[in-house]
Amino acid sequence: MTTEVKSTSRERLLDAAATLTYLEGVNIGVDALCKAAGVSKRSMYQLFESKDDLLAASLEERTAEFAAGLLPPAADGRFPHERILHVFEQLESQAGAPAFRGCRYLAVQIELKDQNHPASQVAYRIKAKLTAFFRAEAERGGASDPDQLARQLILVFDGASARAGIGADTLTGLLAPTVATLLDAAGVR
Amino acid sequence: MTTEVKSTSRERLLDAAATLTYLEGVNIGVDALCKAAGVSKRSMYQLFESKDDLLAASLEERTAEFAAGLLPPAADGRFPHERILHVFEQLESQAGAPAFRGCRYLAVQIELKDQNHPASQVAYRIKAKLTAFFRAEAERGGASDPDQLARQLILVFDGASARAGIGADTLTGLLAPTVATLLDAAGVR
Repeated sequence: MTTEVKSTSRERLLDAAATLTYLEGVNIGVDALCKAAGVSKRSMYQLFESKDDLLAASLEERTAEFAAGLLPPAADGRFPHERILHVFEQLESQAGAPAFRGCRYLAVQIELKDQNHPASQVAYRIKAKLTAFFRAEAERGGASDPDQLARQLILVFDGASARAGIGADTLTGLLAPTVATLLDAAGVR
Repeated sequence: MTTEVKSTSRERLLDAAATLTYLEGVNIGVDALCKAAGVSKRSMYQLFESKDDLLAASLEERTAEFAAGLLPPAADGRFPHERILHVFEQLESQAGAPAFRGCRYLAVQIELKDQNHPASQVAYRIKAKLTAFFRAEAERGGASDPDQLARQLILVFDGASARAGIGADTLTGLLAPTVATLLDAAGVR
C-alpha cells in the first residue's frame, strides 16, 4: 500500500487491487478493495466500470515495475547470453522474498480461467513482451531457432516462478545452469 | 460428472469438486458443488468436515488417474530417456484437449496461496511423487546429478502445463526437444 499523502483515489484503488489480488487472489471482494484503498464503492464505480476493469488496470499499472525488475538496461554492452541470464538471476533473487507468490500475470490467468477476461488479456500482452525480449536477444545472439528458444525461456520463467510461488522450489542453483544449457544447445553467444 | 446410477453421494461430491474446481477455481461455492452432485448441504457436511476437506479429498481421488495419464508402465523395458519423454508426450497430448486448464495440482496451489491448506498439502505430495519418478529414472539413466535433473524436469512440466492451460502455448514441437536437451546435458541414457 502506498503511504504518499497525495495519492489519488484512483492510485490507491490500483495499488490495493494489485496488492490484494497478488496476496489473496482474483476473487477478492470489492468491499475489501475499497476498504484497503480508503475509497467508497460509489467512488470506485465512478472511476472504474467494474471490478474486472479495475483488476485489468491494476495489472497494466505494474508493467513498468515488472519490466524494470527483470530486464537488463537497453544496450548495456553485454552479450545476449548474459542479458537473458540477467532475467533469471533477477527472478531467483525476487523468489527469495517471503512475500513472493510467483508471477502475478501467470497467476491471474490461471485463476480467471477465461482468456477473454480483460485482466487475462492485459496479463497475456505483458508476458508476450517478455517473450519478445527473449526472442530478440536469441536472434541477436545467433540462436539456431529464436522462436523456439524464446518459447523455452518463457516456459522456464513461468515454471520457475510458479514453483517458487507455491513454495515447491527455492530456485537456488537451478535457473542459471538450466538456462545456460538451453542457450548453449541453441548456439547463443 | 459421473453418470453411473449407483454412485454414492460421496463419490458424486468428490467428482463435482474435482470437476468444478478445475473449470472454475477453488472459490466455487458449496451450494454449486452440492447442486452439481445432487446432494444436500446437510449430507455434504455429514460426509466432509468442510469444503476444504472435500477439496483435499477430491484431489486425492484423482491421483491414480493423474499418474496413469502421465507415467509409463513400470519396467516397460524402455530406457530412462524414453520413459521420461513419455511423460511429456502425454502432457502435450492432454494439452490438446479443449477443456485442458493445466495441471490441477499446480493450479490449486497457486489459487489457494496457502501452503498449509489441506488441499495444498495433498497437491504438493502428489506432485512430489512425479518429481520422485523423474529422479529415479534420472539416477537409473546415469544422470550426473539426478536431483538437479528432477528439479529441471518438474519445472518444465509445470511451466508447460501452466502455459498450455492459459492458452499461451500449444506445446506442439516444444517439449520433446527441450527435455531431450536437458537429458543429454545430464548424460542420461
